[in-house]
Amino acid sequence: MNYSNAGLFIIGTELTRGVIADKHCQLLAHQLTRLGYHVERMVVVPDDGSIETVLRQAIGRCDLIILTGGLGPTSDDLTRSVVARLAGVELRRDKESFDTLYGRIGERIWGANEQQTLIPDGFVAIPNPNGTAAGFRGIIDIEGREVALIALPGPPREMDPMFFDEVLPYLARLAGHNDFNRSEYSTFLIPEAKLEELCRQASFNGLEWGTRFQEMAISLYLVGGSSAERDEMANRLRAMVGPCLIADGEVTAATLLTRRLCDRNETISCAESCTGGMASVQLTDQSGSSQWFWGSAVSYANEAKTALLGVREETIAVHGAVSQACAIEMAEEIRHVSGTDWAFSITGIAGPDGGSAEKPVGTVCFGFAGAGREAEAVTVNLSSYGRSSVRRKATTVALLLACQYIEGGHLLDTVSKWQYI
Amino acid sequence: MNYSNAGLFIIGTELTRGVIADKHCQLLAHQLTRLGYHVERMVVVPDDGSIETVLRQAIGRCDLIILTGGLGPTSDDLTRSVVARLAGVELRRDKESFDTLYGRIGERIWGANEQQTLIPDGFVAIPNPNGTAAGFRGIIDIEGREVALIALPGPPREMDPMFFDEVLPYLARLAGHNDFNRSEYSTFLIPEAKLEELCRQASFNGLEWGTRFQEMAISLYLVGGSSAERDEMANRLRAMVGPCLIADGEVTAATLLTRRLCDRNETISCAESCTGGMASVQLTDQSGSSQWFWGSAVSYANEAKTALLGVREETIAVHGAVSQACAIEMAEEIRHVSGTDWAFSITGIAGPDGGSAEKPVGTVCFGFAGAGREAEAVTVNLSSYGRSSVRRKATTVALLLACQYIEGGHLLDTVSKWQYI
Repeated sequence: MNYSNAGLFIIGTELTRGVIADKHCQLLAHQLTRLGYHVERMVVVPDDGSIETVLRQAIGRCDLIILTGGLGPTSDDLTRSVVARLAGVELRRDKESFDTLYGRIGERIWGANEQQTLIPDGFVAIPNPNGTAAGFRGIIDIEGREVALIALPGPPREMDPMFFDEVLPYLARLAGHNDFNRSEYSTFLIPEAKLEELCRQASFNGLEWGTRFQEMAISLYLVGGSSAERDEMANRLRAMVGPCLIADGEVTAATLLTRRLCDRNETISCAESCTGGMASVQLTDQSGSSQWFWGSAVSYANEAKTALLGVREETIAVHGAVSQACAIEMAEEIRHVSGTDWAFSITGIAGPDGGSAEKPVGTVCFGFAGAGREAEAVTVNLSSYGRSSVRRKATTVALLLACQYIEGGHLLDTVSKWQYI
Repeated sequence: MNYSNAGLFIIGTELTRGVIADKHCQLLAHQLTRLGYHVERMVVVPDDGSIETVLRQAIGRCDLIILTGGLGPTSDDLTRSVVARLAGVELRRDKESFDTLYGRIGERIWGANEQQTLIPDGFVAIPNPNGTAAGFRGIIDIEGREVALIALPGPPREMDPMFFDEVLPYLARLAGHNDFNRSEYSTFLIPEAKLEELCRQASFNGLEWGTRFQEMAISLYLVGGSSAERDEMANRLRAMVGPCLIADGEVTAATLLTRRLCDRNETISCAESCTGGMASVQLTDQSGSSQWFWGSAVSYANEAKTALLGVREETIAVHGAVSQACAIEMAEEIRHVSGTDWAFSITGIAGPDGGSAEKPVGTVCFGFAGAGREAEAVTVNLSSYGRSSVRRKATTVALLLACQYIEGGHLLDTVSKWQYI
């Protein structure tokens, strides 16, 4: 049997009343699409039992059904009964789920929670490490058609790990991927559509991939093959996009820089112009960051560059505020004031106004200074998708290049190899 | 005829492939719920024509159907044909839509765009000021049941204004609200659940309300009644929550401060500690902000407060870095360095570490200085929903209080009247 048409069914009155937004559809649809499933419909219904109607309407068209929600301890939560009725079986207590929950909550299980350990007979329980409702999966036969049916709890912090740890490998097997494993990476500055295109080129031996858009990075995961093969695909991508833009694991550029500083027990400061403080916000995102982050000068107006940092008026008059000369002075001056081991600076044209033929919107200069190291500056042209995008990209570039500078890397060389930013 | 059961149908293969997340369901469900509709199902399908199947399955259960997407110029976009078929009518050219589009794109209309001016016969066109596809609405009779059907384009920047300006008043009339009008406000620092509770208390004469969560504010709109009645409800809310927390229109605290500075042709600078640059990022969000924003010192470590700003070591030793004394020095010093008309400062404990019995996590001190004005400081305890929330709230408090200070308001008095932050 080949399972190919999927239907997603999300249960929750808070969703149909618009109190909260659905978080599951995009995640599940993306993962299923990656595995080769066609998502035929995604349906959200209230907790009022109407799930049965919409499920019956979908059967005959979907051979994989994923349900989320409706597994709580209250009487509104009907998913397990509806599935048992569709499958024509009774509910039975799942011993392992019961024992696990009893181990956690003891005699309190004999209230409403006990029913959360019931699953339709013949189904397999899916453990829920973060909540009281077990999920379940099984294959039911309806009018001579096999339908794979999976039920998961609604809260994302319960659903997400259950999906990734248990359901995704199962779906991969159903879809014919026998050896299912995945590795995670984080990518910076590469547009999502380009990343998709490059993955198609870099893939081999049937390796699959998926992406997830984060605020300051795009997560990339590679699925299937061996760990060595996935690393090989990641390295092919690295060769295509240039250095520093693909990191192992789920990280941000700020995390990478912070780790390096912590490992070396060193400190940093910065001077920001067009980013207006974004790099500082990123670097102070964690508690205790004053251990490695001293502070920064957000020298937004030209007078702030001279008054707060001591950049020479002549430098600005001769080279402009957006220049490598100014970037170097900004980095050197903030390092001088702060006494930190390292310092970096950002000065550029975020737009939409302020560009010129020589220095178009998106032109950003970065400066770096450190003890016993010559200060360096580079200029990067960030293709402009708008002011906010230029500011976010410039922040990421500064943090990535600061890592490079600390490690003794050659910045100009790095930047000149970036292909798609 | 009473229209009460609504179905939402969202068309887009990018959605069922998980490339992008649906933005419409929550917005539409929330608005419909407010008007008293019961949202019976929300269905997302690809661009492949399967909309017809799911629509036919819903008829008989829904008496209001809202469709989004599938109105583009490509052959995948089938919404208008499907609706015409359901209604048993032909498509006809809507003269006004055609003339408007012809006025904008001229002879280029004779490509694929021409079909975007077709609507099912007997339907009413809904103008689209931000795109080429007109929407339409009509009432169709299916097996003796009346169903109100509304079709809108998929892109949120096209759909949202069409919905609010044309569809929402129509739906209000359908639901029996004859006098439909609304006013928009922005609220700061009030938790959404509390705002909901307060609206229930403040409402009178059947005034309805809705909220929409933004990054730095919650939008509130009041629906129904007269403009004077809506203002009266807003004033009741203002009296409940305290001064400055409810502003007219869709604004942020940064917008409010910027407007005041522009009106007065004055400048500002700031010194930030726990917020790590967030206030500066907010104030530099618009191009040209160097006209009113000089820059800031992100004096994160204690040494930065002394070295970058000249805060006295003694002040920090005696009062601590999180103190009104330190906040005042920070504001005065940055104003001294910058020469701006105004300056403010933020120093606090964002957590999760660093709190004490005397100064728990969420304690934040704000300082303000200005020409010919005595410097002032206040302390606010921001209930802690986590580091990121304390940082965002502290940023908003600083920007709101800076507005107050500039206007000559009494800060301590303002802060002491805030009831629910």
